[in-house]
Amino acid sequence: MLAVVGAGSWGTTIASLLAPRAATLLWARSPELARSLEDRRENEQYLPGVRVPDTLEVTADLKRAVSDAEFVFMAVPAQGFRDVLVALAPHAGADSAVVILTKGIEAGSNLRMSEIVAEVLPGIPAGVLTGPNLAQEIAAGQPAASVVAFASTELAQRVQAYLHTGTLRVYTATDVTGCEVAGATKNVMAIAAGICDGLGFGGNTRAALITRGLAELARLGTALGGHPLTFGGLAGVGDLMATCTSARSRNWSVGFSLAGGRPLADVVASTSMVAEGVNAAAPLALLARQHGVEMPIVEQIAAIVQGRVSPRDALASLLLRPARDELDEIFQSGLPAD
Amino acid sequence: MLAVVGAGSWGTTIASLLAPRAATLLWARSPELARSLEDRRENEQYLPGVRVPDTLEVTADLKRAVSDAEFVFMAVPAQGFRDVLVALAPHAGADSAVVILTKGIEAGSNLRMSEIVAEVLPGIPAGVLTGPNLAQEIAAGQPAASVVAFASTELAQRVQAYLHTGTLRVYTATDVTGCEVAGATKNVMAIAAGICDGLGFGGNTRAALITRGLAELARLGTALGGHPLTFGGLAGVGDLMATCTSARSRNWSVGFSLAGGRPLADVVASTSMVAEGVNAAAPLALLARQHGVEMPIVEQIAAIVQGRVSPRDALASLLLRPARDELDEIFQSGLPAD
Repeated sequence: MLAVVGAGSWGTTIASLLAPRAATLLWARSPELARSLEDRRENEQYLPGVRVPDTLEVTADLKRAVSDAEFVFMAVPAQGFRDVLVALAPHAGADSAVVILTKGIEAGSNLRMSEIVAEVLPGIPAGVLTGPNLAQEIAAGQPAASVVAFASTELAQRVQAYLHTGTLRVYTATDVTGCEVAGATKNVMAIAAGICDGLGFGGNTRAALITRGLAELARLGTALGGHPLTFGGLAGVGDLMATCTSARSRNWSVGFSLAGGRPLADVVASTSMVAEGVNAAAPLALLARQHGVEMPIVEQIAAIVQGRVSPRDALASLLLRPARDELDEIFQSGLPAD
Repeated sequence: MLAVVGAGSWGTTIASLLAPRAATLLWARSPELARSLEDRRENEQYLPGVRVPDTLEVTADLKRAVSDAEFVFMAVPAQGFRDVLVALAPHAGADSAVVILTKGIEAGSNLRMSEIVAEVLPGIPAGVLTGPNLAQEIAAGQPAASVVAFASTELAQRVQAYLHTGTLRVYTATDVTGCEVAGATKNVMAIAAGICDGLGFGGNTRAALITRGLAELARLGTALGGHPLTFGGLAGVGDLMATCTSARSRNWSVGFSLAGGRPLADVVASTSMVAEGVNAAAPLALLARQHGVEMPIVEQIAAIVQGRVSPRDALASLLLRPARDELDEIFQSGLPAD
């Protein structure tokens, strides 16, 4: 039995991929959404136009969802992650494992999702599913590739077997920390890329911004214990590329709207979906400072979110930094000197 | 005195950036183009709509262009690079240096441009200017970043000083080989990305393809002596990102047209510009085999160019490879184990 906790677009997509392989329960917080999904076989709110498999069961009963689950796929927003985990903790099996689909950081604690699992469900292994995975495209059956990372390769391979299909290629990895840092940080970079595009800059400007964004992500990721090569793979470059160049990305869309002059509160209020980069920017900036890592793009996005600088001024300040030796600068405190 | 040899879009753009800083001579192969550029201050054939500085001199006389040049910026297509270099060799000063703007491989010899310089102008230092630099955007004054790589940092810094402006940030580097391999290979990847987009695949598919393209580029680059980190910087990820996601990229456009069913000969004949990836694919595939490096994307594009496979079948064969451990697979013979 598999459980997917959270019936947003990504949770619904993953549940739909799992259901043909194994009995799968999808938990929706809202009983109305659960009922509508059960009845109509479509998530009209978060994944309209996509039919979910007939074998997928949907419930608003968290206990029922997770009680017999071999894997609990967590697909709730980062700021609600802990509460849901606390609520399901009494019902989770001792030999279950958590697969984190959420790409964010908990504000206040500055914790990654796997650290929250370690606090709330000590002893339960936590892994990450990540990569360039815009939900609508996966749901539409477009070819894509993902990474599932667990400290235990055996666990990663079990998840791989459930998810790997003709169109979704799932790779295994062991670097949970690196994958998490990459996933949270790329959302912030996508806001920056959206601003860049929204201000009318071209492909060169965006490519330079994303390249430096990748270096920030790798610097923080390695400082926190991630493996340098993770950032060159699907969880790093790959996810960054998809999220920063697609109008389907929520975070890119937030940046694009901000560049057009819309206030952040308006942009955020205009959708029921969560753009994790908005909440992750300030915690990531704090983490970077704590670890002595320079993350100028993250700092500027945090300043925008906090209303301290305009998108235009933020981008200008990034573009006006003096140039030095490239590798000295972009990898200064990240990848090994080698 | 500076010389820019080749008056295509990129040569004209760089000459226009240099002319306000130092006396600059732009060499055009065609006397008509040279005259028209001198008279109208616009390269109507290769960079229409952009006014070149009044101080830029244009000539079709190669001897005049290079005789007193401190730096000779080479901006001719890869397959004509050697011939032009041989023609200018008798006139080049003994203490001049070559800055390579060409991103390609010489067919037949499989040599990089710096290796051709070493053969034709022994003792003359050769460096590379590279990065995410779509000519039209640079010419339009859009913010961008470049890398200039010379074995000698002092030479790189002199070029940096000539080119660095408020909108173009020029970084120095020492890894000439890595920059060259990245520049030649990303053009092949751009053809693949264009095919991917032209076949109607989405952002996930393209991101996965480009991520694996980056790994190919890094594998070959390190096998040939490049520095692993080069491929994570502007010359690698940055250039790949710009070239693979912009309709302004010639190589992307070739791939996009091929996906639509146009024969390669038609596509190539329809423009006076050279898409270097078309000529680089087969030589890079040979180099990869010689060095025992797997480059499945380059192999498939070479097969398309040689008419051995259709774009659709080539992409299908790339997407259907079995998935393993990600880092084992994508970095198998490239980046150092740790």
